[in-house]
Amino acid sequence: MSNDVFQDVPVIPFEGPDSRNPLAFKHYEADAVVAGKPMREHLRFAAAYWHTMRNPLGDPFGVGTAKMPWDDGSDSIDNALRRADVFFEFLGKIGIDYYCFHDRDVAPELSTQGATSDALDRVVNHLQEHQVASGRRLLWGTACLFAHPRYVHGAATSCSVDVFACAAAQVRHALDCTHRLGGAGYVFWGGREGYTSLLNTDMQREREHLARFLHMAVEHKQSIGFDGALYIEPKPMEPATHQYDSDAAACLNFLREFDLLEHFMLNIETNHATLAGHGMEHELKVAANADRLGSIDANMGHPQLGWDTDQFPMDLADATRVMLVVLEMGGFTTGGLNFDAKRRRESFDPVDLFHAHIGGMDTFARALKSADVVLRDGRLSSFLKQRYSEWDSDLGQRIEAGEIGLVELEAIANQRGEPVLRSGRQEMLEGIFNDAL
Amino acid sequence: MSNDVFQDVPVIPFEGPDSRNPLAFKHYEADAVVAGKPMREHLRFAAAYWHTMRNPLGDPFGVGTAKMPWDDGSDSIDNALRRADVFFEFLGKIGIDYYCFHDRDVAPELSTQGATSDALDRVVNHLQEHQVASGRRLLWGTACLFAHPRYVHGAATSCSVDVFACAAAQVRHALDCTHRLGGAGYVFWGGREGYTSLLNTDMQREREHLARFLHMAVEHKQSIGFDGALYIEPKPMEPATHQYDSDAAACLNFLREFDLLEHFMLNIETNHATLAGHGMEHELKVAANADRLGSIDANMGHPQLGWDTDQFPMDLADATRVMLVVLEMGGFTTGGLNFDAKRRRESFDPVDLFHAHIGGMDTFARALKSADVVLRDGRLSSFLKQRYSEWDSDLGQRIEAGEIGLVELEAIANQRGEPVLRSGRQEMLEGIFNDAL
Amino acid sequence: MSNDVFQDVPVIPFEGPDSRNPLAFKHYEADAVVAGKPMREHLRFAAAYWHTMRNPLGDPFGVGTAKMPWDDGSDSIDNALRRADVFFEFLGKIGIDYYCFHDRDVAPELSTQGATSDALDRVVNHLQEHQVASGRRLLWGTACLFAHPRYVHGAATSCSVDVFACAAAQVRHALDCTHRLGGAGYVFWGGREGYTSLLNTDMQREREHLARFLHMAVEHKQSIGFDGALYIEPKPMEPATHQYDSDAAACLNFLREFDLLEHFMLNIETNHATLAGHGMEHELKVAANADRLGSIDANMGHPQLGWDTDQFPMDLADATRVMLVVLEMGGFTTGGLNFDAKRRRESFDPVDLFHAHIGGMDTFARALKSADVVLRDGRLSSFLKQRYSEWDSDLGQRIEAGEIGLVELEAIANQRGEPVLRSGRQEMLEGIFNDAL
Amino acid sequence: MSNDVFQDVPVIPFEGPDSRNPLAFKHYEADAVVAGKPMREHLRFAAAYWHTMRNPLGDPFGVGTAKMPWDDGSDSIDNALRRADVFFEFLGKIGIDYYCFHDRDVAPELSTQGATSDALDRVVNHLQEHQVASGRRLLWGTACLFAHPRYVHGAATSCSVDVFACAAAQVRHALDCTHRLGGAGYVFWGGREGYTSLLNTDMQREREHLARFLHMAVEHKQSIGFDGALYIEPKPMEPATHQYDSDAAACLNFLREFDLLEHFMLNIETNHATLAGHGMEHELKVAANADRLGSIDANMGHPQLGWDTDQFPMDLADATRVMLVVLEMGGFTTGGLNFDAKRRRESFDPVDLFHAHIGGMDTFARALKSADVVLRDGRLSSFLKQRYSEWDSDLGQRIEAGEIGLVELEAIANQRGEPVLRSGRQEMLEGIFNDAL
Repeated sequence: MSNDVFQDVPVIPFEGPDSRNPLAFKHYEADAVVAGKPMREHLRFAAAYWHTMRNPLGDPFGVGTAKMPWDDGSDSIDNALRRADVFFEFLGKIGIDYYCFHDRDVAPELSTQGATSDALDRVVNHLQEHQVASGRRLLWGTACLFAHPRYVHGAATSCSVDVFACAAAQVRHALDCTHRLGGAGYVFWGGREGYTSLLNTDMQREREHLARFLHMAVEHKQSIGFDGALYIEPKPMEPATHQYDSDAAACLNFLREFDLLEHFMLNIETNHATLAGHGMEHELKVAANADRLGSIDANMGHPQLGWDTDQFPMDLADATRVMLVVLEMGGFTTGGLNFDAKRRRESFDPVDLFHAHIGGMDTFARALKSADVVLRDGRLSSFLKQRYSEWDSDLGQRIEAGEIGLVELEAIANQRGEPVLRSGRQEMLEGIFNDAL
Repeated sequence: MSNDVFQDVPVIPFEGPDSRNPLAFKHYEADAVVAGKPMREHLRFAAAYWHTMRNPLGDPFGVGTAKMPWDDGSDSIDNALRRADVFFEFLGKIGIDYYCFHDRDVAPELSTQGATSDALDRVVNHLQEHQVASGRRLLWGTACLFAHPRYVHGAATSCSVDVFACAAAQVRHALDCTHRLGGAGYVFWGGREGYTSLLNTDMQREREHLARFLHMAVEHKQSIGFDGALYIEPKPMEPATHQYDSDAAACLNFLREFDLLEHFMLNIETNHATLAGHGMEHELKVAANADRLGSIDANMGHPQLGWDTDQFPMDLADATRVMLVVLEMGGFTTGGLNFDAKRRRESFDPVDLFHAHIGGMDTFARALKSADVVLRDGRLSSFLKQRYSEWDSDLGQRIEAGEIGLVELEAIANQRGEPVLRSGRQEMLEGIFNDAL
Repeated sequence: MSNDVFQDVPVIPFEGPDSRNPLAFKHYEADAVVAGKPMREHLRFAAAYWHTMRNPLGDPFGVGTAKMPWDDGSDSIDNALRRADVFFEFLGKIGIDYYCFHDRDVAPELSTQGATSDALDRVVNHLQEHQVASGRRLLWGTACLFAHPRYVHGAATSCSVDVFACAAAQVRHALDCTHRLGGAGYVFWGGREGYTSLLNTDMQREREHLARFLHMAVEHKQSIGFDGALYIEPKPMEPATHQYDSDAAACLNFLREFDLLEHFMLNIETNHATLAGHGMEHELKVAANADRLGSIDANMGHPQLGWDTDQFPMDLADATRVMLVVLEMGGFTTGGLNFDAKRRRESFDPVDLFHAHIGGMDTFARALKSADVVLRDGRLSSFLKQRYSEWDSDLGQRIEAGEIGLVELEAIANQRGEPVLRSGRQEMLEGIFNDAL
Repeated sequence: MSNDVFQDVPVIPFEGPDSRNPLAFKHYEADAVVAGKPMREHLRFAAAYWHTMRNPLGDPFGVGTAKMPWDDGSDSIDNALRRADVFFEFLGKIGIDYYCFHDRDVAPELSTQGATSDALDRVVNHLQEHQVASGRRLLWGTACLFAHPRYVHGAATSCSVDVFACAAAQVRHALDCTHRLGGAGYVFWGGREGYTSLLNTDMQREREHLARFLHMAVEHKQSIGFDGALYIEPKPMEPATHQYDSDAAACLNFLREFDLLEHFMLNIETNHATLAGHGMEHELKVAANADRLGSIDANMGHPQLGWDTDQFPMDLADATRVMLVVLEMGGFTTGGLNFDAKRRRESFDPVDLFHAHIGGMDTFARALKSADVVLRDGRLSSFLKQRYSEWDSDLGQRIEAGEIGLVELEAIANQRGEPVLRSGRQEMLEGIFNDAL
C-alpha cells in the first residue's frame, strides 16, 4: 500500500540534544518514560489529514505552492486512496500514532450524494486496512460542514431546512465512519455556525437549531453504540464575524443552556484561544475546571496577526503551560495533541512536513519534561496551596459551606480590622517557571 | 442646597437641529413622544457620579487636569455634601432624571470602618433630600470593591478571607443605601475578580467564592425587601489580565453554573463589549436572548485603542443598533442608559461636562428616532422573518420539536437533492439601515 | 459588445431620500453640484475589476459562492473578453465613470509568457474600445505580483533574481497597457514585498531591491512618456507577517531613504489603515501633510476582525472624515475613490453587486454633502485656527523661524510663569461634527 | 549614604542553574566571558529610577500598593535624597551597573521654577557622589514632559507657546544634568507629542514644532559639549490616541523629513513595539538597518492586553532574538538594556524588586548565551547567505548596481523561463533556533 514518496527521508530517529541532523528528534523519544509513562502515551500526537495531505498552502492573496507529486489533482477515488497511502507512510516515518480527518479531505465530494457516500466508504475501508497494518489509530473524525457553498449561511444554523438536513446526513455518515475506524472521539467545529451580520440573523433561533442538531448527534451516537467522546471546538471569529462557539465559556454556556453538558467535552486550540483574547492556558483551565477538557489542537498563532495562522507549536513556554494543565488533570483519556498546523506557504517541499512536525514534537517533548520538573519541584504548587490557606480556616470553611451571610460577615470584618496582605510574588514564580524550561 | 457653580450655564434647552448653540439640544426633547412614549422614558438617561464628580482626568502617564473649583480636595464630609449639591445642580441643568454611584465616590473612606459608614449614611441622607426636592432618582448603586489596596488580590475572590469579609461588609451597606434611596437596581462589577497570573491563582476556587458572595447578596436583598434588579457587568480585561466576568456569555455560564441565573440581569457596557472582541450589538443580543438584558452603560471605545477609553457615545450608527435592541425587547424596565463616560483629559473645564453629555444625549435621541424609523419601516424585520420561513414549514417545525433524528433527515436530504439558497443581501440591508440614520 | 446579463436591473436612477426602491440612489446624484462641482467630479468613483468580475467570494474555509453565469470558468480569451463586456455593462448601469484593474484579472496567465502577453494585449484593446464607446476611463492599472506561486518569496524582494526579472517584465507590460488606456495612475501594492519570518530574511537587502525596482519603473514611465501618477499602497500585514510598506509613515520613510519621494504618491485604503492600528483619517493626513495623498481605496474593515475584510464603505462618519481631507486638499487630481470592496460571501447574486455599490456610493454622496456642511459652517476650522493662535504671535513666529534656543526660551519661561491653558473641547467638536451628518 | 533598607537581602550571588535560592542568579554571572566579553559589558543592564523608586503600583482602577518604608511621601528634598540612597543600595545588591532617570522622579516639582531647579541640582549632586562612590553610571537621563497638567496638550507640540517654552527650559536643565553626571545618552520620549482627536489638532504644524524643539536640543548639546547619544523612543498610542513617534519607521521618517537623522539614534522598547503591531525583532532590525539602533528598554507586554503592561522580560525566545540583533551589530556602544519594567500591582514588597530584576537579568543572561550559540553554530547565517546567493551572481550585481532597466530584464526573463524556487524552510530554522534555547 505504499508509494514510498518520502524515500529520501528515513524513519526519523531520536539522536538527542547534541544532534545537528535536522531530520532527527533532539528531545522526543517515544518510549522514554517521563512521569511514569512513555512520552508517546502522555502526548498522544496526532497528524491532521487536512493540513498534511490536502493543504495546498494558498492564502487569500495567492494560490497554492505545496509540491504534492503523489497527487494528480483529480477528485478520483484512486487519488484519494493514494493519498491515504502517502499519509500512512508519513505517519510511519515521523512516528506519530494517531490521526484526525474530515470526511471531505479523505474522500471527494462527487456529483451525487450516493457517489459521495460510496467514495467515503471505500476510503474508510482503506484507512482501516492501514490502521490494522500499522497499529496507528484515529484520534477523532469529523464532517466538513463549512467548505461547500451550500453551507454559506451555516450548516445546523442555516436559514434553510434543507441545508440542515444535508448537514445531518453528512454527520450521520461521518459518525458511523469514525465509529467503524474505532475513533477515540468525534469533533464538532462550527465554522459556519455563527453570523456575518446581525441584520439578517435570528441568533437565538439559530442557536436552538444548533442545540437540536447536537442532541440528534448524541442520540445517534448512542444508537450505534459509539463510545468515543464528542467534542465542541471553540473559535471566536473567522471565517465569519462571530461564531456561536466563540470560546470555552461561550461553549459551556451553550451546553448548559441546552442540557448538553454531560454529552460534550471541549477540544481547545491554541490559536483559537488567542484570537478570542485569552491565553491558551486560560481556555484550558476554564475547560478543565468544568471537567470538560477533552483534547487539544496543538498549534500557535502569531501574536501580531489577527487571523488563524495555524503555525506549528514552537513556543517552549506556552507548550509547557499546556502540559502542566494536562499533567495536573491526570493526562488525556480520549484526547491527545493534534497538530492542527500548516507549514508556511514558503515551505512547500514535502520534506518541510517533516521539519515542521519534528519541531512541534520536540517542542512538546521538552514541554512535557519541563512540566514534570515543575510538578516534581513542587514550589509552584506549594505556593498556591499556601496562598489560599486562610480559606482552610474555620471561618473560610464556614463561608464556603454557605453558613454565613453578609450581616454576620460585616460584624467579623469590623472586629478584625484591616486585613494583612501578602505579595502575589508573580515575578518570583515566573523565575521558578523559567528555571524549569 | 445649591452652590450655583454652573452659573454661566443655563438649563439646557431644546432648540432643534438648526441651532448652532453648543449649549442646546438639537435632538433630545425630553417630553417629545416617539414610539408611544416620551423620549425621557425610553432613554432613562443616568449620569455617573464617579465620572461627573470624582474623575480628575488623570491617566497612567499624567495627573488629573479637571477643574473642580467646588471641591477642596479633602476627604471631609462637608466636601462630600458640597459635591452632591453640585451634582444635583448639574442634573437639573442638563435635564437627566437618573444617576448611579459607588459608595466610595459619594462619601470618603475614613480611618475607621465606623467613621466610613457614618459618612456614607450622612451623604446618603443628603442625596435622599436632593432626590425628594428634585424628583430625580437612583438608577443603580454599587460598592467600589477595586480601588482600595486591600482588594489588590480581589474582593470576593481574594485569597484572604478577611478581605472577603470586608467586601461583604461594604456590599451590605451599599445594598442598604441603594434600597433606602429607592434605587431601581444594584450593580456588581468585578474589577478585581479575576487574575493577573495563573501561576498564583486557583481560578475555580475563586469563582466558587464569587458565587457564594453573590448568593449572600441575593439573600440579603430578600431579607431587606429590596426589589430592585441585581446586575452583573461584564468586562474582559483591565485592570488585571482576565476578569472572570469577561463577556455576556461568560457571565451567563457563571450564573448557570452556580444557580444564580434567576437572580441576576446583565448591565452591558459598549466599551467592555468591544474590548471583549464583540460588537455591542452582539453582547446586547446575547443578554436579551437569555432574557437577561437589564441595563446599559452608554459609552464607546476607540477602535484602535486596547483599553477602556470610556468616551461619550457619539456614534450614531452604533447607538441606533443599541436602541433597536432596546425597542425590540419592549424597552427598559429597571434599567436605563447610564453615561459611564469621561471627558478626554484635555476637556478639563466644568462646561465640558455639559458639552459631553449634550453630545451623548443628542446621539441617543437621534438613535431612538432612527430605530423607530427602522421598526416602523418594517423592511428589515420582514426580511428576517422571510429568511427563516422554511423553518415554519412542517419539516422545520418537526425538527424544532425534536421529532426527527439524523437517519430520517438523511433520507429526506437524499430525496430532496441540493438545496436552493437565497442571498443574505447584507449590503442591501446595510443600505436600508443607513437610510434610517 | 454587450451581453445584457443584468437585464433585470435598470440603469440605477436617483430617486432621492424618500425612495424605498433598493435599486435607486437616495443621495448620489452624479451631476448635482456640491461645493462648486458635480458630485461625480468630486468623488471620481471607480469600480475594481478584481472584486466585481473575478472574486468568487471564497474564504480560507470555503470555496466561492458567487453566481457568474456569464463566466464559463475557463482561461480562454473569449471568456476574458466576455467579462469585459459584462463589466462595462455594469459600469453603465451603476453609473461609475472609472475603473481599476490588475493585469491578471483582465486577462489569463497562459502557459508561455508570449501567450500571456498576447492575451493581455487583446483584452486591453477590447477595454480601449469599451472606453471609447462609453466614455469611461481607467483610474489606475497595476500588475498582480502576489498570486502566482513564483512570487511566494516576494516579487521585487524575492531571494531569486529570476523572479525579480519576471516581475520587471510584468510591470513593464502593465505600465505600457495603463499608458495605452490613458490611465490616470499606476499602483504598486507590495503584497509579497515583506517577510514571514526574519529567520530567513535579509530585510535591508530586500528593501534595496524594492527601491531599485521602483527606480526602474520611474525610468520606464519617463521613457514611454506616461504622465499618470505612480502610487504606493500601504498595508501592514497579510498576506505575510509584515509588508515593508506597512503604513503611510513607513512608505514615506522608504521613499525618502531611497530618493523616490518626488516620484510617488500614496494610495490609502481604509481597511489597511485600520489594520495598521491607525484611523483612516490619520493615514490620510500623514499622506496629505507630505503632499503625497494621491488616491483612495474606499472600503472598510470590521472593527473586531483582524484581517482585510474589504467591506463596502457604509460608515457615514468615517466617509465624512475622508471627504473632509479630500475637500481640504482641494480635491483629487489623478486619484479617486476606488471601491476596493467585496460583497460578503453570502451575497452571491449578481444583483448584490448593485446593492453593494449603491450603498457605498450613497454613503460617500452623503459624506461629501456633510463634509461640505462642516466646511461652510466653519466652526471647526475657526476653532482650530484659534487654538494655535499663540504661535502666530511674535514669540511663536521666532521659534518657528529657528531664531531662539533652549537657553533663551528658559529665560522667557521663567519670566512668564505657569502657562494658562484652554480646554481642547473635543466633545463639543464631536457634537458639531455629528450635527453635520 | 546608606539606609540599609534591604537588610534582609544579601548582595545577590551567582549560584548556577541548580540553585533553588530565589535570591540568587542562576544564569547571570557578571564577569563570566561570553563571546569575548564579560556578560556585564554585553548586557549593560540599567535600572529605571521611576519604576524602582517612584512607582506606587497603582492602575487606572486602583491606588498604589507598593510598600516603600523609606519614603515619607513628601515632596521634600530630604525624601528625594533618601530615595537616591536606597536606589544605590539596590543597585549595589542587585549588581546593576547603570541607571536611567527622569528629572521629576529624582527630584520634586516645587512651587516655583527656581525651587524646582535647585532641588534637581541638589539631588544630581547627590547622585554624582553615589556614582563616584559606587562606580555605577548613568545610561541616560531624560525630562518628564508628560505628567504635569501643563503638558496636557503636548510639550513641544502644545498649542501653547508658553508650554513649549517650559518644556525647553526643562530639557535644557535635564540635558545639563545628564552631561554633568557623565550620562552615556539622553532620551526623548514624546508621551504627549501626538493627538487625542484630529478635530482639534494641526498635525503638521505640531510636527514642525517638535522638529524645531529637537534641533534646539541638538544645538544645546553641542554648545555644552555633551557627547552622549540623543535617542528618540517610539511608542504608538497611550497615553493619547496617537503619538507622532509611533514606531521605528515613523521616527525615521520624521528624522529624515526634518534633517535630524544624523543626530538621533532610537531607543526601542519591547512593549512599545508590540503595541505598534510589530514584533520587537522587527523594530530592532528597522533601527539597525538604518544604523540607528542605540539602546533598548527591556520589558515585555502581555500578548492579549492592549496597553503598556511594562512587565519584566521573562520570555527566553524573545530575549534571544533581541540579543541576536545586538550581537550582530557588534554590541552596544552608548546604549544598554534598561529595565523599563514594573512589578505587578500584587507584588508590593520591596523584595519583589529583587525577584523581578533577577528574573529579567537571568532571562537576558540565558538569551546572550543562546544568541552566542546560534551565531557560533552558524547554520542560520549560512542559510541566509545561501538564500540570497543568486544576487551575488553577475546579473544580481548588475541589477543592484542600477545597470539594468525593465525592458532589458523582460528580455532576460523571457529567455530564462519559469524560475526555480527553493523552500524558505521556516519550520526547520525555527527548530534550529529552539535548539539553542
